[in-house]
Amino acid sequence: LSNGLFVHVRKMLHSIPPADVALLLESTPVRNRSLLWKLIDTDYHGDVLEELSEDVRNGIMREMVPEKLADALEDMDTDDLAEMLHGLPDRVVQDVLESMDSMDRARAEQALSYGEGTAGFIMNTDTITLRPEVSVEVILRYLRLKQELPEDTDMLYVTNRYDKLIGTVSLTSLITAAPEISVEEIMEEEPEVIKVDMDETEVAKLFERHNWLSAPVVDANNQLVGRITIDDVVDIIREEAEHSMMSMAGLEDEEDTFAPVLKSTQRRSIWLGVNLFTALMAAMVSDLFEATLSQLAVLAILNTIVPSMGGVAGNQTLTLVIRGMALGHVSASNSRWLISKELAIGFLNGVIWAVLIASVVALWKQDYMLGLVIAFAMLVNMIAAGLSGVILPIVMKKLKIDPALAGSVILTTITDVVGIFAFLGTATWLLL
Amino acid sequence: LSNGLFVHVRKMLHSIPPADVALLLESTPVRNRSLLWKLIDTDYHGDVLEELSEDVRNGIMREMVPEKLADALEDMDTDDLAEMLHGLPDRVVQDVLESMDSMDRARAEQALSYGEGTAGFIMNTDTITLRPEVSVEVILRYLRLKQELPEDTDMLYVTNRYDKLIGTVSLTSLITAAPEISVEEIMEEEPEVIKVDMDETEVAKLFERHNWLSAPVVDANNQLVGRITIDDVVDIIREEAEHSMMSMAGLEDEEDTFAPVLKSTQRRSIWLGVNLFTALMAAMVSDLFEATLSQLAVLAILNTIVPSMGGVAGNQTLTLVIRGMALGHVSASNSRWLISKELAIGFLNGVIWAVLIASVVALWKQDYMLGLVIAFAMLVNMIAAGLSGVILPIVMKKLKIDPALAGSVILTTITDVVGIFAFLGTATWLLL
Repeated sequence: LSNGLFVHVRKMLHSIPPADVALLLESTPVRNRSLLWKLIDTDYHGDVLEELSEDVRNGIMREMVPEKLADALEDMDTDDLAEMLHGLPDRVVQDVLESMDSMDRARAEQALSYGEGTAGFIMNTDTITLRPEVSVEVILRYLRLKQELPEDTDMLYVTNRYDKLIGTVSLTSLITAAPEISVEEIMEEEPEVIKVDMDETEVAKLFERHNWLSAPVVDANNQLVGRITIDDVVDIIREEAEHSMMSMAGLEDEEDTFAPVLKSTQRRSIWLGVNLFTALMAAMVSDLFEATLSQLAVLAILNTIVPSMGGVAGNQTLTLVIRGMALGHVSASNSRWLISKELAIGFLNGVIWAVLIASVVALWKQDYMLGLVIAFAMLVNMIAAGLSGVILPIVMKKLKIDPALAGSVILTTITDVVGIFAFLGTATWLLL
Repeated sequence: LSNGLFVHVRKMLHSIPPADVALLLESTPVRNRSLLWKLIDTDYHGDVLEELSEDVRNGIMREMVPEKLADALEDMDTDDLAEMLHGLPDRVVQDVLESMDSMDRARAEQALSYGEGTAGFIMNTDTITLRPEVSVEVILRYLRLKQELPEDTDMLYVTNRYDKLIGTVSLTSLITAAPEISVEEIMEEEPEVIKVDMDETEVAKLFERHNWLSAPVVDANNQLVGRITIDDVVDIIREEAEHSMMSMAGLEDEEDTFAPVLKSTQRRSIWLGVNLFTALMAAMVSDLFEATLSQLAVLAILNTIVPSMGGVAGNQTLTLVIRGMALGHVSASNSRWLISKELAIGFLNGVIWAVLIASVVALWKQDYMLGLVIAFAMLVNMIAAGLSGVILPIVMKKLKIDPALAGSVILTTITDVVGIFAFLGTATWLLL
């Protein structure tokens, strides 16, 4: 890049689709990003911004002059506009709004008025509405005059004179219907709708369940206010699915892989801090048995095995339950069954790995009692791991804490403490 | 269920959509599932099967009589048919194919001929093709006669007389075009196509990048063989995103939360076995320092802190890199930059947590040298964690091993071994 190939790069940037330019920006270290950004034609800025992930996008938008940003955001769909502006500091949003023409500003303000994560925030307002009594022929003539339909239109909406949604007409039924028939006769009555304040996770579930391409959004009075299209839902589905994985490692959802060192270090430090605390707690449990440890150094050597196995077993259960909750499989009605199942697995796991570790230790250290001690500790900890793996996320969900975020740390603390206590406690009792 | 409320349940099962019945089945312990299944009307079986997750579906299909199964699979889309049959043992597939009528059998055999995970496997064959010279009016008349279009049709395909795809016409452009215009004039020429042997992950990326609702599938000769619709792509996107999370805990993608105890225990045991092996390796490293440990019990107490911090830091980097790879951000061209970034973060993390743990330990154990020893070990292990977190997945990907599956275990082994070695080694050198 630094070799004066600017013209070449600029040309290349305009020959590939915006999504690919976005991918390129996301794969570039922060330092070179603004350079690359300047090489992109300003007409192109809006399209590329739409495709960028949140973290990267906010970084770029904060460096732009408000007027330029307002230009880039012009003509954007309402839902995209809301998402863009949401990530910016209030002061910048004000500046950008002031640089917009009045119509764009009104749209932007309306979009921002719905909370993030609601149906209103992700909907578009460019719906085509029909009256029930009009004939198919008239509609087709009207659409032909209109020349263009909003992007991803698969359905037109039928409203009564109070703007209330009374039905939907798909493009396919419009095409296959006889011209003289009225809209009323081909419309689907009482269509399923999305309330404007519905949570986006629920919206995504409905889309997946019904295989929708788009769905109408209505307000509390059943008046049509917009529509949600599948392309925005796909983004939500990906984010939801990634969310669990990222939070289980203590990372933010759209964390930028190429963020600068200081920012990354700071973000990851919370998690490391929590872990230091739990590691110290485990150390304090060991500290209770200092006398035992100083007499039998072999215990120190084996002290990590039982907690480590418990941690893995517990995290397997936890991951499964968290996913089950996200998919809506785990609820109050079957949680008791699930708890007894994981208890049984924990017991079975405990027996299997207790026998195995006892044999290994008895052979390695030529100490049959030592084998018995570690076997007992393993059994206890595996049961504790299975139980906490299923009870923890259920309790956390009731307390409205995200189990993906804190579940793993709490679980590991439990399995560490129980494991060390069981192992060193039994050893103190039986071996001294 | 056991209280003779069968009629009531049966009624309820037919008043809710198939996706909800599927959800109900997935949330039910295996024992009650076949009972519930029998209460569902046989006409309904096919629709429900389509909505079930793989693991649950295979369980149910294996219990069905081949003739009944063939009935249920009748009239199913080609892509769904292929997916259903793929999960069954070959012998059962033969039985089912024999119970089908010849047309269904031909479709099923063709679908199965494409490998799982390719575009051919997930495509539908129900395309509507047009000739370029025909007028819009004629097309509309033809569609009106046809009465119904295949599900999720947003686009018709234009082929020449050798069946080669030469363009696409969207329903919207068909509606808005003047009737006398020819297809040629409104079609999009040289449309982007999907090759029939393309990997489904690539297909999903293309759909996401271009916000497609459907796309044509062509064979090596550019002849149209089918189309892929967004509803199938949504499933792939969810599976892909879940795959990383599940495999990082050593679980299978579509693992059934309500599988029986024995099956679950068996599936999870591989991972626990691998972990036992690595835990024993860590114990053996400690074993090298038995003499040191027997003289200083305090080392045994603190021995878990450094490995644990390294494990968390390393797993954060690993998770980030695995996601970056899945999104296509991490490649050969920027991996060197990423390695030096994570090296820097590792160093910075090392310094921060070394200072902190040194202070805690020096205060707690009133031993200033001990603080110094643990600080040094922490620094070394944090750097090792950062480096292996980024190098490991890159190397594994080159070796075509899934980093989500084995990365975490190998990483933890490295941070355990390095952490224990650095801590006990330095202690032996400085404190004895």
